Amino acid sequence: MTDHKVVFSVESIEKNIEVKVPTGTLLSDAAAKAGVEIGQPCGGQGRCGRCSIQVMEGDVRRRSTLRLSPESISLGYALACQSVVEADVRIQVPSQEKIERRLASDRQVAEITVPHDYEYVQDQTIRRIHLSLTPPSMDDQTDDLSRVNTGIRTQLGFEQVEMSLNLLQKIGPVLRDGDWKVTGIVDMTERLNESQGNRSVRLIDLTPGLIDEFSPLWAIAVDIGTTTVTLWLVDLVSGQVKAQVAEYNGQIARGEDVISRIIYAGKNGGAIEMRTRVLETINGLLDIACKRINIKPSQVVKGCISGNSVMMHLLLGIPAESIRMSPFITTVNHLPHLTAQEVGLGIQPDATLICLPGVASYVGADITAGVLSSALDEAENVSLFLDVGTNGETVLGNRDWLVACACSAGPAFEGAGVQNGMRATAGAIEEVWINSTTLEPTYRVIGGGKPKGICGSGLISLLSEAFLTGIIDKAGNIALSKDHPRIRKGRSSDEYVVAWGSETETGQDIILTRVDIDNLIRAKAAIYAGFTVLAENVGISLETADKVLIGGSFGKYINVEKAIQIGLLPDLEWSRFVFLGNTSIRGAYAALLDWKKEERISRIAKRMTYIELSADNSFYEAFTSALFLPHTDISKFPNVALELASKVPDPGAR
Amino acid sequence: MTDHKVVFSVESIEKNIEVKVPTGTLLSDAAAKAGVEIGQPCGGQGRCGRCSIQVMEGDVRRRSTLRLSPESISLGYALACQSVVEADVRIQVPSQEKIERRLASDRQVAEITVPHDYEYVQDQTIRRIHLSLTPPSMDDQTDDLSRVNTGIRTQLGFEQVEMSLNLLQKIGPVLRDGDWKVTGIVDMTERLNESQGNRSVRLIDLTPGLIDEFSPLWAIAVDIGTTTVTLWLVDLVSGQVKAQVAEYNGQIARGEDVISRIIYAGKNGGAIEMRTRVLETINGLLDIACKRINIKPSQVVKGCISGNSVMMHLLLGIPAESIRMSPFITTVNHLPHLTAQEVGLGIQPDATLICLPGVASYVGADITAGVLSSALDEAENVSLFLDVGTNGETVLGNRDWLVACACSAGPAFEGAGVQNGMRATAGAIEEVWINSTTLEPTYRVIGGGKPKGICGSGLISLLSEAFLTGIIDKAGNIALSKDHPRIRKGRSSDEYVVAWGSETETGQDIILTRVDIDNLIRAKAAIYAGFTVLAENVGISLETADKVLIGGSFGKYINVEKAIQIGLLPDLEWSRFVFLGNTSIRGAYAALLDWKKEERISRIAKRMTYIELSADNSFYEAFTSALFLPHTDISKFPNVALELASKVPDPGAR
Repeated sequence: MTDHKVVFSVESIEKNIEVKVPTGTLLSDAAAKAGVEIGQPCGGQGRCGRCSIQVMEGDVRRRSTLRLSPESISLGYALACQSVVEADVRIQVPSQEKIERRLASDRQVAEITVPHDYEYVQDQTIRRIHLSLTPPSMDDQTDDLSRVNTGIRTQLGFEQVEMSLNLLQKIGPVLRDGDWKVTGIVDMTERLNESQGNRSVRLIDLTPGLIDEFSPLWAIAVDIGTTTVTLWLVDLVSGQVKAQVAEYNGQIARGEDVISRIIYAGKNGGAIEMRTRVLETINGLLDIACKRINIKPSQVVKGCISGNSVMMHLLLGIPAESIRMSPFITTVNHLPHLTAQEVGLGIQPDATLICLPGVASYVGADITAGVLSSALDEAENVSLFLDVGTNGETVLGNRDWLVACACSAGPAFEGAGVQNGMRATAGAIEEVWINSTTLEPTYRVIGGGKPKGICGSGLISLLSEAFLTGIIDKAGNIALSKDHPRIRKGRSSDEYVVAWGSETETGQDIILTRVDIDNLIRAKAAIYAGFTVLAENVGISLETADKVLIGGSFGKYINVEKAIQIGLLPDLEWSRFVFLGNTSIRGAYAALLDWKKEERISRIAKRMTYIELSADNSFYEAFTSALFLPHTDISKFPNVALELASKVPDPGAR
Repeated sequence: MTDHKVVFSVESIEKNIEVKVPTGTLLSDAAAKAGVEIGQPCGGQGRCGRCSIQVMEGDVRRRSTLRLSPESISLGYALACQSVVEADVRIQVPSQEKIERRLASDRQVAEITVPHDYEYVQDQTIRRIHLSLTPPSMDDQTDDLSRVNTGIRTQLGFEQVEMSLNLLQKIGPVLRDGDWKVTGIVDMTERLNESQGNRSVRLIDLTPGLIDEFSPLWAIAVDIGTTTVTLWLVDLVSGQVKAQVAEYNGQIARGEDVISRIIYAGKNGGAIEMRTRVLETINGLLDIACKRINIKPSQVVKGCISGNSVMMHLLLGIPAESIRMSPFITTVNHLPHLTAQEVGLGIQPDATLICLPGVASYVGADITAGVLSSALDEAENVSLFLDVGTNGETVLGNRDWLVACACSAGPAFEGAGVQNGMRATAGAIEEVWINSTTLEPTYRVIGGGKPKGICGSGLISLLSEAFLTGIIDKAGNIALSKDHPRIRKGRSSDEYVVAWGSETETGQDIILTRVDIDNLIRAKAAIYAGFTVLAENVGISLETADKVLIGGSFGKYINVEKAIQIGLLPDLEWSRFVFLGNTSIRGAYAALLDWKKEERISRIAKRMTYIELSADNSFYEAFTSALFLPHTDISKFPNVALELASKVPDPGAR
C-alpha cells in the first residue's frame, strides 16, 4: 500500500505539520496521527460539518459532502471525517470561526449596523438647538417663555412651540443658570410628517449652556416580548447602538403566555401589577445600559417601543380583556406619540415615546416592526416572515399584499418553560452535537465558559440530535432502554444529561426532560401549523416562497438543517432561509432613527390583513399533525427522511 | 304756633299713623311722637341717609339733602333728620331696603346674571355628543379607539381626535358597559379658534349610555386671590352660576402679600407647600360647591382660572423668584390650555383648564379678566379700573389704549391683617354708623344675625365714621382723651369697641385697633398713590376719567362717600363710580362660557402696557402723602373738607 504525504497547514497556530499515511486513510485519522486537532462533535458521522477542511494541493475522495455548499466544494472544502486520502495533499485547517461561516445550513444573525443612508439632520425628528437670548431688563420685561419661544421660532421657523408644565417649571432657573445661553432639545415630528407646512415643535428639555450640537443624543429602542424584553441604547447623532441588554419580562412570573397574562391582569389589582412588573424590567434594563456607557437615564430623550398587542396594552394600563374574548378586539392598534412620563419610563419625563402600531389582537407592533426589518413589504416575490417567539406570528406577502396570522407557541424557544432553558447570553449552550455511537454530546457555549443552561438554538439542535441518534423517538419519548448513564429517569420525568454537574457553572447537571421535549414539540408544531394554514388560506404553496425570513431570539447561530429536522421550518433549500435575529427591536431601532421608517411601519400596519386562526378548524388539525418529529406526514420532509434512512450504519465508516 | 297734621304711611307694617306737630318740628321728631321708627344711625347728622322718607302730599323744608340724588329729591325724597314740617304732609316711610337702593353714594354690586347673548352651542367649546357605534364582530375587528374616532369624526367633521392615555385606559370597558352606545364630552377649542379649518378635537370623557345632550354640563370659574380664593360652579348649558363659594387662600399662613409668598416658596420645599396649600383651598371649595348642588367633582369637565401672576406661578409650581427681583420677570404670562390632572385640580382629570393670561409680574390674569368684566377695553371715553385687592392694581384707558400699574396694598380691605376682619360673608358687619354725639355705633350685619367680625366695606365705613366723629384723628390716632367706655387702651394698642361681647356671635368684643387703622391707612394710601401716579405718568388728570370702575370683594354694598372720606377713592361725583364686585372671577366666568371672551382677554393682555412703579420715586412720595385721612393735601378732597367743616355744631340741630 502506497503512503501519501499529508501536510496540514493549521491556521490557528500558523504551522505546517507533515505526516505520512497509507492510501485509504480518513483525513480525520491522518490529522489525529499528525497531532492536529480537528473537532468532530457528531462523532465522525459527517453530520455536524465542524471537521471541514480545505484541500489546497492534490485532492481527496469525498464520501459525503452533507453540510457543504456547492460553492464550498468548488473551493476545495471537504469533511475530514468523510474524506479519504488517495494522493499527496496539502490541507488547510481553518479556524473554527471560519468553518462556521462556511457551513451551508448554519446562519449567523446579521450584525447590527447603522443604516448606510442614515443622516441625522434629515432623518431624525429630535434636534439639539442653541439659544443665545437677550437677557431681560427694565426696558424689556418679556416673560421667560416668550423669550424661549421667540428664540426657537426664529431659528426653526415654527408657528408654535409646545412644552409641558413639567418643563415650564424649570425654564426660569435654567435660563438664569445658563446666563441666557441654553441648549434645547426639540421634537420636530410635526414638521417632518405633515406636508401642510410648519405648525408646532415640542420642547423636550432645556439645559444651561451651549452643548455641542453633535455630541451624542440618547434614545432607546425597546422590544417588549412576552418572554424577553430587549433594550438598545442608541446615539441618535451617529445612529450607533451603544449598548444592548435583555432580560426576561418580569410579568413571566404571572403567566407564560399572553392569555394567562390577560387573565391575571383582569383580576383585582392585576393590571397595575402587570404594568409595574414590565416597567420594572424596562427601567432595570435602562439603568444597566446607561451605567455601561456612563450616562444618566434622564439624558435619554426619545424612545421607540415595539411589542405584541397584549404587551402594549399591559404596558399602558389599557384593559386587555377584550383581546382574549371573541371577537378578539384590541382597544388601540395605533397610538399617538406619548411622553415617557405618561407611560412611566425612567428617562427624561418629556421624552417622545413612539409606540409602534399593531394590526390586530394577535398581530402587534412586533410584527409590523419585524416586517419592516425583514423588508418583506418591499419584496418583489412572495416571501414568508416568521417570528419564532411566544406568539408564533407569520406574515406572507410581498410589496403588493401582506397577510398575517398568529398561533400560541409558548416561550420554549426563548429558553423559558424548559427546565435548563435560558436566554441566548453568555453561558448558554447554543449548539449541541451527539455522537451517534457513544451518545456523548459535544456543545458550544456562548462566551466560551462553563455552561449555565441551553438557549433556543441550543434546544433546537439538541432536540434534533437526540432524535437523529435515537435518544428520543418521533413522539418525543426518551429511550430508557438504551442503558446509558446520560439517559435516566428523573424526578418528574425521563431525561437526557447534556452536561454533567462537574462541567457546568452551577455544579448541577444540565438536562433535557420529557416535559421540556413536549413543550418544544408543541411550540414547533404551533409555528409550523401557523404558516402552513396561512399559506393554504391564501392558496399558495409554501414551496413558492422566495425567502423564509426568520425573526426571534434563539441565539447568534441557527442551524437551518436542525430546525428542519425537528419540523420547525419547512423542508426547503437552505439558501432560502434568512435569520434576522430579533426583528422587533431592529424595526423599533429603524423607526427610532428615521421618521420615514416609522411612517413605513404605519403603512405596513394599514396594509396587513389579519386572518384569525382560532376561528379555523384546519389550524387545530395542522397542529395535531405536527406534534411529531419532524411531522406525522414524513413526505413533507423528504430530506429529513433521507437523513433518517442514512442512519443505517455505513459499513465504510469506522 | 300752627299745628300741622303729619300722616306717616309706613310701608313695612302697611299702616297710616297720624300725628299733629307745631310748625318747625323736625320730621324725625314728629315720627318719634307718632311712634313710627325711622333709623338714624348717624345720630341725626344728615350723614348716613338712612332716615330717607318720601313726601307724598304737601312739602317739607329741606335743610340738607346730602346723600340724596337729584332724581330722588325730584321724587319727593327728604332726610327726616334734616327736614322741618311747615304744612300738612303725608309722608311715605319706605322699607330700609328701598332706602338703601335710593342712597346716591351707596352702590350695590351687580347681581350675577347669565350674559343675555349666551348661546351654548355657539359660544361654548365643550360639547356633549352621542355615539351609537356598530359593535365589533369577527368580520369587523376594528379596534375600540378607531371605532370611537370614526364616530366622532363622522359627527363633528374633524380630522383628528385626541385623548389622553388616562381616558384610553377606560374606553374599552365604557364601550362594552354602554353596549356601544356612549356619550362623549369633547373640547372643540381648536375648531372654534382657528380659522384655517378643521383640525383636532379632544375627548375629555366617555360614559356609557346616551345622556341627555342638554342636561347640565359642569364647569368651574376660579379666582385665586392673594387673600381670598373664590370658586363658582357653572352649568355650561344654561350658563347659570349654581354655587358660589369663597375661602381665604391657604397660603396666607405663609405670608400675607405676594412678596413674602415668593420668599417662602423659594425656601427648601416651600414651592411644593405653597402649591399644595392653594390646591387644598381650591379642592376644598370644589367639594363644598359640589355638595351644595349634589354632584361629584369628577362631573366637572372644564375650568377657568384667574389670579395674579404670583398666584398663577405658585399654583403651577413654576418658580416665582424672578418676579420679585429686578428686572421683575415672570416665567410665563400666557399659558396654553392645561388639563386638571396636570395642575392638580380634583375635577375630571382630562378637564380643560384655561389659565387666563397676565401682562407682567404685577399685572396678572386677575386684571386682564377684570378689564374684560369692566368693559374698559371697549369704553369710548377714558376710564379708570381699580382692583382693590391685596395688590392694588390700576388700569387706565379706553378701547384704544390701556396702561396698568400695581402697588402692594396688603389684604386689609379683604378683612385679613385686621384683628376682627373677615370676608364679606354672613356675620360680617358691612356698614357702620357712629352717632357723633354719643359716639355709639350702629351697624348692619350680612345675613342679619349677630356679628362675627367686620368685612372690607364695614372697615371703610367704620374708619370714615370714626374719623368724622373725631374718634380718630387724620393720622389715625385714637382719641383716648374722649373718656368713653368704647375708647380704651387695648392689650397691644388703643382701640374702639364696635360691638360688645354681649351682642356678638363669639361673645368677644369686636374692636378696631390702632394697628388695624395703620394697616387700613397704608392700604388706602397705596391704592390712591397707585392710580394718581399712573394718571400722572400718562399725563391725564383723574378728573377726566369718565368712570371709576371698581373691582374687589369688600361686600355687597359699598358706600362711595365713605371711601372718598378716608381717601381711598378720588373726590369725584358719586355717579361716576361703578362697583363691580370681584371682577377677576366675573372675567373668568365670562371666558369659561364663551371662547370669544377668552380671546378678548388675550387681546387685552397683549394691548396693555405695564408701568413699573417700583422704579418710580414719585410713587413713594404719593404714598407717603396719602398716609393721612383723607390726604395730606386736603385740597384734593374738597367735598370731604366741606363735610369736615360742617362738623362744627349746627345751632339749628338739637
